Amino acid sequence: MIPPAKPLLLNAFTMNCVGHINHGMWTHPQDRSTEFNHLSYWLDLARILEKGLFDGMFIADILGVYDVYQQGIALTAREAIQLPVNDPLMLVSAMASVTEHLGFGLTANLSYEAPYPFARRFSTLDHLTNGRVGWNIVTGYLDSAARAMGQTQQLAHDRRYDQADEFLDVSYQLWEGSWQDDALVIDRQRRCYADASKIHPVNHHGEFYQVEGYHLSSPSPQRTPLLFQAGSSTRGVRFAGRHAECVFVNGSTPQALREQVNKLRQAARDAGRLPEDIKIFMGVSVIVAPSEKDAEEKYQAYRRYASPEAGIAHFSSSIGVDLSQFGLDEPIQTGPTRAIESVTQTYSGWTRRRLLEQHAMGGRYLLIVGSPSQVADQLIKWLDEADIDGFNLTRIVNPQSYIDFIDWVVPELQQRGRYKTAYQPGTLRKKLFNHDRLPARHRAARWRADTQTSVEDKC
Amino acid sequence: MIPPAKPLLLNAFTMNCVGHINHGMWTHPQDRSTEFNHLSYWLDLARILEKGLFDGMFIADILGVYDVYQQGIALTAREAIQLPVNDPLMLVSAMASVTEHLGFGLTANLSYEAPYPFARRFSTLDHLTNGRVGWNIVTGYLDSAARAMGQTQQLAHDRRYDQADEFLDVSYQLWEGSWQDDALVIDRQRRCYADASKIHPVNHHGEFYQVEGYHLSSPSPQRTPLLFQAGSSTRGVRFAGRHAECVFVNGSTPQALREQVNKLRQAARDAGRLPEDIKIFMGVSVIVAPSEKDAEEKYQAYRRYASPEAGIAHFSSSIGVDLSQFGLDEPIQTGPTRAIESVTQTYSGWTRRRLLEQHAMGGRYLLIVGSPSQVADQLIKWLDEADIDGFNLTRIVNPQSYIDFIDWVVPELQQRGRYKTAYQPGTLRKKLFNHDRLPARHRAARWRADTQTSVEDKC
Repeated sequence: MIPPAKPLLLNAFTMNCVGHINHGMWTHPQDRSTEFNHLSYWLDLARILEKGLFDGMFIADILGVYDVYQQGIALTAREAIQLPVNDPLMLVSAMASVTEHLGFGLTANLSYEAPYPFARRFSTLDHLTNGRVGWNIVTGYLDSAARAMGQTQQLAHDRRYDQADEFLDVSYQLWEGSWQDDALVIDRQRRCYADASKIHPVNHHGEFYQVEGYHLSSPSPQRTPLLFQAGSSTRGVRFAGRHAECVFVNGSTPQALREQVNKLRQAARDAGRLPEDIKIFMGVSVIVAPSEKDAEEKYQAYRRYASPEAGIAHFSSSIGVDLSQFGLDEPIQTGPTRAIESVTQTYSGWTRRRLLEQHAMGGRYLLIVGSPSQVADQLIKWLDEADIDGFNLTRIVNPQSYIDFIDWVVPELQQRGRYKTAYQPGTLRKKLFNHDRLPARHRAARWRADTQTSVEDKC
Repeated sequence: MIPPAKPLLLNAFTMNCVGHINHGMWTHPQDRSTEFNHLSYWLDLARILEKGLFDGMFIADILGVYDVYQQGIALTAREAIQLPVNDPLMLVSAMASVTEHLGFGLTANLSYEAPYPFARRFSTLDHLTNGRVGWNIVTGYLDSAARAMGQTQQLAHDRRYDQADEFLDVSYQLWEGSWQDDALVIDRQRRCYADASKIHPVNHHGEFYQVEGYHLSSPSPQRTPLLFQAGSSTRGVRFAGRHAECVFVNGSTPQALREQVNKLRQAARDAGRLPEDIKIFMGVSVIVAPSEKDAEEKYQAYRRYASPEAGIAHFSSSIGVDLSQFGLDEPIQTGPTRAIESVTQTYSGWTRRRLLEQHAMGGRYLLIVGSPSQVADQLIKWLDEADIDGFNLTRIVNPQSYIDFIDWVVPELQQRGRYKTAYQPGTLRKKLFNHDRLPARHRAARWRADTQTSVEDKC
């Protein structure tokens, strides 16, 4: 018996700023990215995505600025390369109030946060959204952020993951361990809101964090938010295997990506979890039109607005190397940088010309251009050959790219039985994994208070 | 010529939790406080307040739990005394999306925050609300918070204010100094979003904070959020004189409050500001009905739900003294505590019985019970005799207390020409002070970048 074909999961990949991935496209007359300071823009976007049955809106974030290219922020400011950039968490309650099912994957850098108020922030959002929030765990990679936080430079790459491991363990204690499921009584007659014998203080004394106290929020629908992560280094994959439920990847070929995916699923096994406990999303840009010819024309029309130079200015900060210093055809020497090893390996020896060509649409994500059936073919090919689960779809002309995708690609995928025709009920985790809370095999479960029996009813 | 009578300003005083001030009232059948985890509750409340032309919703917050009374959290949990308590900032964008004028005064404890991401959070909200946010600056007073943040105990009272002074100065540099007014160009044809020559890095090296970097948000309508504060100690008043635009006070008599108000206005003068640069809001609870008799009956009916004991449990943490240890008629010895001096002075020598009587409605705020004209008389008396500007109105039965106030007291005040009949346009600061940004005489202005001339157009 052949198992049913895997459905394609879909997030909109966006950011609380003007230029996110496909740099320069803000100059297109139809692009609304410059409205990011206004709620109406976000409410419209959320409604569009829910109409298109997107699983989530995945909001990237960065603390710090891209100041490596030409050793300054001139181009960063001119092309609004993720500057200005506002806090993504502040957007959520408004968008939650006009949607019912759309999830919100929120990037938050833990390096400069304290677990105690941080955990409350996500619990609050999980309550207000009825369990629709995810946390994209990042530790940051910009020296400019470290300097803004009073440090001369950031922690070394692998040490940041050590810190992240401990941050997660403290957070699990707050989210999963502090309040028992039955702590809330809410009985007006008996005058008992909660039973203190079922609320336990966290008592964590570790290498990076010291936390003593009760979690401030009562149990939210998912408790721990759905955990996203994007590490591709050896240490990052180990971290993903231990914690992540969704991993965000980029691929050059389905075969190369498949290797990365195998490593991630193996890392889950190594951490006592199942390979399917991790859903893998690949970044992709799509230009679609009714016919191949129309799509190609749209691509050529869009290209005129893109800024490949802004793309490599962004990439300069990603790898910590000022790419403006190399001649157009000179092989790029990356040398030792703080960038993740796999990225520098991939691009070692490339010329600036080749990078500019790769950034034709202003970004370096896989670009699929074609008719609805051609796009669907490509997406399904990646899904099946690379063993991934879905896509983070970038914005090109914003939000028109999403509207095009919903109008043309979604019906095509639905016809092929590869895309939902309605939302499942329940929390974001329930929709993706069919359970509201992390399973017992996830390390978060070890701090769960539910198994503790309380002797004394304090109500 | 007699100057026109001062209009009465009005905030709803609430919190992202069940029991805020008037403890025990959550048990009243009509009270909706237990719905605080749901957006619908907050959207309804915001709409009610805007209908009543409230200037703002002032949302209190606390980091930490009340564990002083009976040396634990048994009563705190049972009566939901500000536990659970969720993050107030997460509520704002949803409520902003259903209102146009209502301001949002948001309590945030700076002691455990880093200025760089913190300033971005408020800039984001100021953008999304079109300039309707205020920050109620607090430094916290609970040892339970310090322990949750990895410290054995908090900084001493006056040192917390030294830290707060520096936190504000760094924040002003980010909010006022980093981006010139004309930094944003947003010209699609010229491909220029912003001019880097008009964006300046902050370079702060102080006692508590080291911050080097560009502010991440572009200039928001108010830049610096409207600044609220509530310090009543000598050091707190000095801080208010230097920074605060709105100060939250409590009064026992109009005469005693007038002295405190005089000190605050003098502190503004001492800081080179005008006495009217500070608007002063007093906390008050109101029970109103068409007649005095009806109001008295409502009061008696409400009282049965209040918990005076929960009130003094809350107060125990405020003063750092377990009030359960004293006999009902034994004079309370407060001894040296970390509580603010004026509070302990006021209550020194009281008995627990007297405190319980004072907390008849579960809280120790001034309670006014009466017909619409009686309530209006009282409010105006306080306003004029104590030289204050308005009130922070607590919730008793929530939100019915606000609805009653709007139905009965607001028309009475309007008839007397003491309450607005429509909102003024513009930002929260514009509505209260007739300017969008802090005036030149406020210390924030010294870091303003506007006066800097840029030589080079980087667009």
